[in-house]
Amino acid sequence: MADSAPVKARGLEGVVALDTELSYINGQEGELLYRGYDIKDLAQNASFEEVAYLLWHGDLPTQSQLDELNAQLRAERALPDAVVDHLRHHTPKDANAMSALRTATSMLADFDADTESHDHDANVRNAIRLTAKMPTIVAAFDRIRKGLEPVAPTGEGSTAYDFLYCLNGEAPGEAAEAIMDAALVLHAEHGLNASTFTCRVIGSTLSDMYSAVTGAIGALKGPLHGGANVKVMETLKDIKQSGKTPAAYVQEKLEAKERLMGFGHRVYKTYDPRAIILRDMLEGLSDEKGDRWWYETSKTMMDEVYDAKGLYANVDFFSASVYHLLGIESDLYTPIFAISRVTGWTAHLLEQWDGNRLIRPRAEYVGPRGKTVGPIAER
Amino acid sequence: MADSAPVKARGLEGVVALDTELSYINGQEGELLYRGYDIKDLAQNASFEEVAYLLWHGDLPTQSQLDELNAQLRAERALPDAVVDHLRHHTPKDANAMSALRTATSMLADFDADTESHDHDANVRNAIRLTAKMPTIVAAFDRIRKGLEPVAPTGEGSTAYDFLYCLNGEAPGEAAEAIMDAALVLHAEHGLNASTFTCRVIGSTLSDMYSAVTGAIGALKGPLHGGANVKVMETLKDIKQSGKTPAAYVQEKLEAKERLMGFGHRVYKTYDPRAIILRDMLEGLSDEKGDRWWYETSKTMMDEVYDAKGLYANVDFFSASVYHLLGIESDLYTPIFAISRVTGWTAHLLEQWDGNRLIRPRAEYVGPRGKTVGPIAER
Repeated sequence: MADSAPVKARGLEGVVALDTELSYINGQEGELLYRGYDIKDLAQNASFEEVAYLLWHGDLPTQSQLDELNAQLRAERALPDAVVDHLRHHTPKDANAMSALRTATSMLADFDADTESHDHDANVRNAIRLTAKMPTIVAAFDRIRKGLEPVAPTGEGSTAYDFLYCLNGEAPGEAAEAIMDAALVLHAEHGLNASTFTCRVIGSTLSDMYSAVTGAIGALKGPLHGGANVKVMETLKDIKQSGKTPAAYVQEKLEAKERLMGFGHRVYKTYDPRAIILRDMLEGLSDEKGDRWWYETSKTMMDEVYDAKGLYANVDFFSASVYHLLGIESDLYTPIFAISRVTGWTAHLLEQWDGNRLIRPRAEYVGPRGKTVGPIAER
Repeated sequence: MADSAPVKARGLEGVVALDTELSYINGQEGELLYRGYDIKDLAQNASFEEVAYLLWHGDLPTQSQLDELNAQLRAERALPDAVVDHLRHHTPKDANAMSALRTATSMLADFDADTESHDHDANVRNAIRLTAKMPTIVAAFDRIRKGLEPVAPTGEGSTAYDFLYCLNGEAPGEAAEAIMDAALVLHAEHGLNASTFTCRVIGSTLSDMYSAVTGAIGALKGPLHGGANVKVMETLKDIKQSGKTPAAYVQEKLEAKERLMGFGHRVYKTYDPRAIILRDMLEGLSDEKGDRWWYETSKTMMDEVYDAKGLYANVDFFSASVYHLLGIESDLYTPIFAISRVTGWTAHLLEQWDGNRLIRPRAEYVGPRGKTVGPIAER
């Protein structure tokens, strides 16, 4: 390990580890592209399934390609009995939702005949199965912990429709399905974040797709990665309960130098384009639900924080209110991130394996040398 | 993402991602240190439990510290009923052994009150529990798939003793316990390999120890990382079955330009020090078992390959025969690697969290731009 002049980059900040054709983020301009398509264009004009196809295959599907993908997803949504049994009998009612999703996703590997194959087509089938089954896991986990029976997927709806149907046991409204679909589109892919990087590191050993996605779920579980929108919802509920105006609440927090979650972004130095899309959709959903409080409060907070600190609201800030109005428990926000991002994770694995190269940096040893094991009595 | 002049290092080769005090590898000299202690010294003079303590705490334990750790490990070896039930009823008999270990390890998170804590002492307790329980998982998995009842740990033996006891249902001989213990010492830590790096990337999001170790198991499962000793055993069995001399077999393979597993190492440019230790222990075990074929064959192969190609036998080359003579199924070799390496993985997590910094490199976008979503009928 004594090569000459290694590059030192603690935390790997600024180091380009790999090339990707999956997404482009221009933080200065607030621009996000998936394979060349602007996120605003995709959110308005493409379904989550079309975006999944785009990420996996490189371009948007024709009608017959989309029909085939939808048929495959619908056929794959049901869970193996063993996984439902596991959620019912071996998952504590108070289990962390990401922990439950991690274990159940890991279990799926044993019920997929393609798991150990590294054939490209088999990997695409695995990606479809993961995308089909992970929403069913999240919905079943939530119902079982509430003492309700899990609801079987309709086998007819979109990913967004079937997820809300399985979660609530009733057909979602059109606006609810549309905004859930858009939320899935918006979270599908976002460059080399920690969970996607985890996925590619695991994949680079030529391990299987389930191992890599299970690892990625574990990374997304970390509060420095996923979970900001959970904290945003806590803040919004705190405001509601306190009876304070959003402006007064924000002033108070800023004076106490407390951090407000959902603002600022490592990459975006202007508005996060996904935040704007969700904000506009939140207004429509608020009208449908007859409850404009979350929208108005969020909007005021956004302006107050920008005026006071110059910080822009990010995607987590508005997804919190969207999911809340859809009736979703706040600890499912990060699992929902995962059921969308699994398309990006698996697309990164397909890209990684198309000319694989092990991803392995070095560590520098800064510890002692020359120690010897003496008799234990003399330590 | 438009910072100036990023460092480009595809696969991160040669990039120093972090500092560590855990192990030092000098590939030119064939030297491996754990926290300053030479691996040969440790293999001869310290138990696996002493090495675990060394990795977690920075130095070897006193007698009372070691007694306390042993008591904790013994108390923690039994599995939650849910995990045994899962292995018994929901794990297919032909499941991949690493896949089974990954899922069962992930499950443990839900039965540990310290999982969501980031207190240092809680993390050490998690590390002890993982180190105590993973061997029990591997043994229970193997017995259940063979239609045998899992055997409860004695609660009295060392990690090596209780693992072999739970696996075989009978007390191991002294030489067997000693060589198993040495194998655990030799595999406990080895710098920033792909599974350890995975562990630290997941940990750097402040996710929990179970998430990180589950991800690491998934990385170790990959054939570019773990699993070389499984292929070594296939080769040795192939030689045995063919009736050829090792020399003739090696010549044939080299002439056919086939790769022989267990030779050469990315880091070591001389003998892997761990290989020499295992080779010498293999001779003793062979005599105890009254079967010198594996030792003699391995030794001849080692010399033949060195003479012909200048390649040195590595740790995987000798661990294959050791595990075979201990009566262990070859698909458990990588899980056994994991039950040792979990001490290194968890030590790296403790080190990572002592001044955490998110590990996140960048990707360079090399895809198209400016595409627009047209009507699906026109694609």
